[in-house]
Amino acid sequence: MGVVRRQQGEWRWENSELYAYTSNAATKQVVIGREDGANNFEVRVFTIPPHGFSSLDEHAHDHGVLILHGHSRVMLGERFEEINAGDVVYIPGNERHQFENLSDEPLVFLCIIPPKPVQPKAETAPAAEGVPAQG
Amino acid sequence: MGVVRRQQGEWRWENSELYAYTSNAATKQVVIGREDGANNFEVRVFTIPPHGFSSLDEHAHDHGVLILHGHSRVMLGERFEEINAGDVVYIPGNERHQFENLSDEPLVFLCIIPPKPVQPKAETAPAAEGVPAQG
Repeated sequence: MGVVRRQQGEWRWENSELYAYTSNAATKQVVIGREDGANNFEVRVFTIPPHGFSSLDEHAHDHGVLILHGHSRVMLGERFEEINAGDVVYIPGNERHQFENLSDEPLVFLCIIPPKPVQPKAETAPAAEGVPAQG
Repeated sequence: MGVVRRQQGEWRWENSELYAYTSNAATKQVVIGREDGANNFEVRVFTIPPHGFSSLDEHAHDHGVLILHGHSRVMLGERFEEINAGDVVYIPGNERHQFENLSDEPLVFLCIIPPKPVQPKAETAPAAEGVPAQG
């Protein structure tokens, strides 16, 4: 059955738990995932605080990204590109990548990944009370 | 190698051909696809003119949708929901669906699909000169 997940407040979606990347104060929400019956792709929203970074990552799976808000410099292998809201990035598997928030606003982006095996969320933990709200 | 596809103008992305659905004046752009090396998902942007409709569809593959602009009523099987920019919809395979643009503005949404076999684009044709620009 179809699922509608409405945006609530500036960068929050209904019925979507907020996860904190404790290393860098970034947060993650899964807006389409296995709990919705989606087995072919997963869609997440990441929020990176002003002048913060996403994790420096290099892994086998690819990413599709749409910048929803803010101004960012993205590392794609040895290349850096400045991007803004509305811009799309495709990051192939095994390419080192990181998003830097260049602005005083939150950086918010949608991130699509192929389905992955169910595994414990080692790198994330549910956001504690004290995690700052975005927006 | 990573691909950056910047938004150009209101609802156009660079290096992305504009396809017209001749039946209803909707347009489609592929913003992440096989030409970018993406074999795990495809990301498209659809624009539906004011008070227009997307195709009435029912097919095996699922959709992930993010409304980028406008106000819509979406059919999900026998259910109808009104949605706005920022809202996310998951449409499972084999669920009948259609987006109606309820407003005087273009309705623009991102649509994710799993990879499909390469096939001729039977239902689409490159937009002719006369296809109205969106936005």
